[in-house]
Amino acid sequence: MKIFFETIHLSSKDRIDIIDITNYIETIVTNNNVRDGYALIFVPGSTGALTTIEYESGVLNDLKKAIERIVPDDIPYEHDLRWGDGNGFSHVRAALLGPSLNIPIKSGKLLRGTWQQIVFIDFDNRPREREIIVQILGEVKK
Amino acid sequence: MKIFFETIHLSSKDRIDIIDITNYIETIVTNNNVRDGYALIFVPGSTGALTTIEYESGVLNDLKKAIERIVPDDIPYEHDLRWGDGNGFSHVRAALLGPSLNIPIKSGKLLRGTWQQIVFIDFDNRPREREIIVQILGEVKK
Amino acid sequence: MKIFFETIHLSSKDRIDIIDITNYIETIVTNNNVRDGYALIFVPGSTGALTTIEYESGVLNDLKKAIERIVPDDIPYEHDLRWGDGNGFSHVRAALLGPSLNIPIKSGKLLRGTWQQIVFIDFDNRPREREIIVQILGEVKK
Repeated sequence: MKIFFETIHLSSKDRIDIIDITNYIETIVTNNNVRDGYALIFVPGSTGALTTIEYESGVLNDLKKAIERIVPDDIPYEHDLRWGDGNGFSHVRAALLGPSLNIPIKSGKLLRGTWQQIVFIDFDNRPREREIIVQILGEVKK
Repeated sequence: MKIFFETIHLSSKDRIDIIDITNYIETIVTNNNVRDGYALIFVPGSTGALTTIEYESGVLNDLKKAIERIVPDDIPYEHDLRWGDGNGFSHVRAALLGPSLNIPIKSGKLLRGTWQQIVFIDFDNRPREREIIVQILGEVKK
Repeated sequence: MKIFFETIHLSSKDRIDIIDITNYIETIVTNNNVRDGYALIFVPGSTGALTTIEYESGVLNDLKKAIERIVPDDIPYEHDLRWGDGNGFSHVRAALLGPSLNIPIKSGKLLRGTWQQIVFIDFDNRPREREIIVQILGEVKK
């Protein structure tokens, strides 16, 4: 078993920016010759989250609207009253979705569905430069 | 450390079908003589999700009603307007709950609570044949 | 690779008690001399959950209010009608947030953000004594 770390660097837009990071992760798996193991993806911050979805603009808009309904941005947030950041809704959205995702790797491939992409969602209220952590643990091909 | 893969095959009903998969996973742990490690469970698709819950029909209905309130199926979804699948709500529900779950294994047992079952939730709008991935990494009993 | 288990013991208050467990986990990593690996944190019960958030009282209150809006405690729950526990809302909230969290460890440190704390959220309707499982797998410093 070996363990690898890589960092994905992203430039995100404000509000709800859903970014497909599947290719980054598959390239890391391939470049490190990992056969069987897992990819642990982690957002080191409190206004972004990870999940999987079919990366199709219709359903991406549907997810955005659902999140806006569930955690509106036009109601008062104590975080904003206290700190003036204006991103209280970003923190709440990120905490509900969660910062980590674990995906099994078998025979050098992520065991994801064909129409299932891995996405980073930036919920912050301004564009950000982001680093996403990818940790891979696994057996290496000889 | 050894790594094992198994696939659970399920037939699910439409809408919100919550299926208890605890016994499948415990059988895989036992059959592979795993002592200490983890079970990583993963849904390779974008209309299903995983979580844990007390598998009691009252609270299962409560969870179903909560999901129907949070992501209704009787509002327009762009996914459906574009593709005609009619399962836009299924995709959004699955993305919010998430496709992966990690459970620690100690001395050959999942460290879950007595009343805490592991469930696959199928959100699709038609019955499906499903494959759930179980990856176990751990030390094996001698 | 070595594997370690520790249990965090907590006394929680009722309703939505958000407890910062970051220091507990960092101490476990340090005490076991883990260099590179992961911390898998797991709630062995069905009325608590894990996530990360900036541990600042304003945003903690914002998260509590959001959860109370999404899964209200003043509507009927079948779980309560059947069992009289009065904590149907607790079960639903815990199932939506999820019981497990995985955090990468590199060079002896959790790869979290500076303002990102790891929290256990107790959703039960009465104070509880809780045990949170921490499993660490990793290479040990020589």
